[in-house]
Amino acid sequence: MHFANELLLQSGKSIRAYDISYETYGELNADKSNVVLICHALNASHHVAGVYLDAAGQPVKKSEGWWDTMIGPGKPVDTNRFFVIGVNILGSCFGSTGPMQANPDTQQIYGADFPVVTVQDWVNVQALLLDALGIETLAAVMGGSLGGMQALSWTLQYPDRVRHAVVVASAPNLTAENIAFNEVARRAIVTDPDFHAGHYGRHNVLPKRGLRIARMIGHITYLSNDVMNEKFGRQLREISSEHASGYRFSTQEIEFQIESYLRHQGDKFAEYFDANTYLLITRALDYFDPAAAFGGDLSRALSVAKAGFLLVSFTTDWRFAPARSREIVKALIDNQLDVSYAEIDAPHGHDAFLLDDTRYLGVVRSYFESKVLL
Amino acid sequence: MHFANELLLQSGKSIRAYDISYETYGELNADKSNVVLICHALNASHHVAGVYLDAAGQPVKKSEGWWDTMIGPGKPVDTNRFFVIGVNILGSCFGSTGPMQANPDTQQIYGADFPVVTVQDWVNVQALLLDALGIETLAAVMGGSLGGMQALSWTLQYPDRVRHAVVVASAPNLTAENIAFNEVARRAIVTDPDFHAGHYGRHNVLPKRGLRIARMIGHITYLSNDVMNEKFGRQLREISSEHASGYRFSTQEIEFQIESYLRHQGDKFAEYFDANTYLLITRALDYFDPAAAFGGDLSRALSVAKAGFLLVSFTTDWRFAPARSREIVKALIDNQLDVSYAEIDAPHGHDAFLLDDTRYLGVVRSYFESKVLL
Repeated sequence: MHFANELLLQSGKSIRAYDISYETYGELNADKSNVVLICHALNASHHVAGVYLDAAGQPVKKSEGWWDTMIGPGKPVDTNRFFVIGVNILGSCFGSTGPMQANPDTQQIYGADFPVVTVQDWVNVQALLLDALGIETLAAVMGGSLGGMQALSWTLQYPDRVRHAVVVASAPNLTAENIAFNEVARRAIVTDPDFHAGHYGRHNVLPKRGLRIARMIGHITYLSNDVMNEKFGRQLREISSEHASGYRFSTQEIEFQIESYLRHQGDKFAEYFDANTYLLITRALDYFDPAAAFGGDLSRALSVAKAGFLLVSFTTDWRFAPARSREIVKALIDNQLDVSYAEIDAPHGHDAFLLDDTRYLGVVRSYFESKVLL
Repeated sequence: MHFANELLLQSGKSIRAYDISYETYGELNADKSNVVLICHALNASHHVAGVYLDAAGQPVKKSEGWWDTMIGPGKPVDTNRFFVIGVNILGSCFGSTGPMQANPDTQQIYGADFPVVTVQDWVNVQALLLDALGIETLAAVMGGSLGGMQALSWTLQYPDRVRHAVVVASAPNLTAENIAFNEVARRAIVTDPDFHAGHYGRHNVLPKRGLRIARMIGHITYLSNDVMNEKFGRQLREISSEHASGYRFSTQEIEFQIESYLRHQGDKFAEYFDANTYLLITRALDYFDPAAAFGGDLSRALSVAKAGFLLVSFTTDWRFAPARSREIVKALIDNQLDVSYAEIDAPHGHDAFLLDDTRYLGVVRSYFESKVLL
C-alpha cells in the first residue's frame, strides 16, 4: 500500500511518502467484523502464513510464513473464520519503506538517514493501513515478542478500534539486561569498518561481520539454557583421533556443535538482513515503555485500554520472562479488564512463541473460539 | 620464576622455556605447612592482595589486588597465619610468558602461534612452581570461576599435594550456553580486521573493536538481571528536553546508562588486555571437563580426590549457577569426602565472588579457621 501523505513520527521527524507491505488470508466478512491483525517481531515480515507458489504453481520450499503453525484454515487463528492481515513494519528490509530504499526528496539511499521509528509509529501506520482498506475495527490484534508490544500499544493508542489483544512472550518494556544485549549487538554492527556510519550502501559493502555477531548474541537469548544443553550440550563437531580428549586444541576453529550452529545462524542472517533495520528495530524495542509517561505506573498507563486480553508466556523464556507478562496481567486486572493468562511450561525459551507446542496453540485456539466473537 | 626445561602441554605441543609470575604474602612457616595457592580467573593476575607502593613509599591508587577483600592480615585468608601465593597463568598478558612475548626459538612475537593451554597445563605449571620454591604440599588451593576449576583440578592431578580446596562460583564444565557466549566473544575478536589471524603485533595494530565487544558480552554475563535493574534500570544518560519522552531518538548515540557503562567497560578492557590471551583463556574454559574421560560421570572423575572441600555459589549467578556447584558437591559426597557448601543469597550475579559480602567472607573465614589446620 502506498501512502502519499507525510507521516509525522514520534521523534518529531517525518517521512514524506512510504509503502507498507501486507498480506491477507481468508475473507473479509460483510460487516468487516472478522479482521485479525498480526504484528511481527525483529526478524520477520508480513508473510505470516501459507506458502508461496512458483511459476508452475508448486509450493516454494521453506516459504512457510513465520506463524504458519498458528494461522491458516482450521488453525488456532482460523482463516475460514477470520480475515487475517500480516503487516510489515516501516523501516523493515522486507518490503515496506526502509533504510535500503531511496529518499524521494534526495533520490539517495536512506541508510543511516532513515528516521528513528517506534512501536507507536508502527501502530499509527497500521491504523492508516486499516483506514485505506476501509476497516474500522479489529476483532483482534496479535503478536509475539516485539509484535506483542505492538498489540499492547494498539489497545492504548486506538482503544476503540480493537476488541481483543493477544500478547505472546512479550514485556511492558525492556530491562537493563535486554537493552544491554541490544547495545552489544548494535556496537558490533556500528564498529564494523564496513558500516561507514550507516552509509555502507554508498560504498558497495555490507557490515556482515557486525551482523553475524549481532545475530549470534540474539540467538543465545532466544534459546533456553535447557534446550541448548539438550540439543548441543558439549558435543564436538568432529572428534580428533589425535588426542584422548577428542579436542583438536584450536582457539579459532570450530570445536563444539554449538559453535557451528551459532556461526551458521550468523552467516545466514548476514546474507539477508539489513544492518540499519537491525539498529532501528532494536532501538524501537529499547524505547517501548508505555508506563514511562505515567511515572512508571503500568496500571495507570493501561487504564485507557478497553480490549479483552490473552497473555501467553513461556517458563524458560529468559529474554521476556513470565514475570514480565504477569506485570501486564496485573495492570490489566487493576483496570477491571477481561484478561486470560497462560504460562506454558515449554523448554524452548523465547523461541517457543514460534514453535508448534500443543498446549500453547490450544490456548490460543480456545481464546479465539470462545472469546473473539463476530 | 624462570623455567628452563621444556614443558609438554595437554595438546601435545610444548613450550621450551617460560616465566611464571607470582606474588607471595605472609611468611612460610618452618615445616612449610601453611601454603595457600590462589588461582585467578579470566581477567586477573598473580596480584591477588595488597597494594603497590610508589617510589616515595606511598600506596599506588587502585592497585589493590583483585581478592584484597579476602586475603591479607586478619582477613578470611589470614596472611598472619598463611603463606599465600598468587600465581599467574601461562599464556597471560600480565607477566607470565604469553602470546605477547617472543618465542625463544624464532625471536618472533608468539601471537597466534602460542600453544593452546588448558586448566590441566596451568595446574602442572603451578606444581612446578611449588617444586622450585621447595614446597611439597598446599594447606589449601583456592580460586573463583576459572580459578575454582584450577583448584578442583589440583585435587585430581595432585591429590597428595593438596589438603583443602576452596572452589568459589565455579562449575564442573561449561554448558552449551557458556560456550556460546565465549564463542561470540571470540568471533568478535577474530573477525576484527585488525586481528590479522592473531599476528596483529606484526602489523602494529590491536583488535580493539573485537575486544570491546567481547568484554561487553562478558560483562552482561557477570552481572545479574536484578543488580542491572537496580543499578541502571531504564535510566537515561541525558534527558532530552526536545521530547516529552526524554529520548534523543538515536540508534548510534548513547541513550541509556547501561549502554554508557558497558561501552566504558569495553573501552577500558581493550586498552590493557591481549586478544590472543582472551582466546586462550576462553578456550581453556571450554575444554575443562574432568568428567569427560569417565563417560560424563563426575563422581568417578572425582574419586581420586583426597582433599577437604569448601564450595561456594551465589544465588543470582547465572553464568555458573548454584546447581553447577551442587553437581560437584554431590560427586564429592558420593566419594565420602569432607565437603562444606554455602549458597550465598547475593544479588550481584557471578561478580559476587569478587565482592565484599559479609556472609560469603564469613563462610571462608570459618572454613580456614576451623578446617585448614597447620
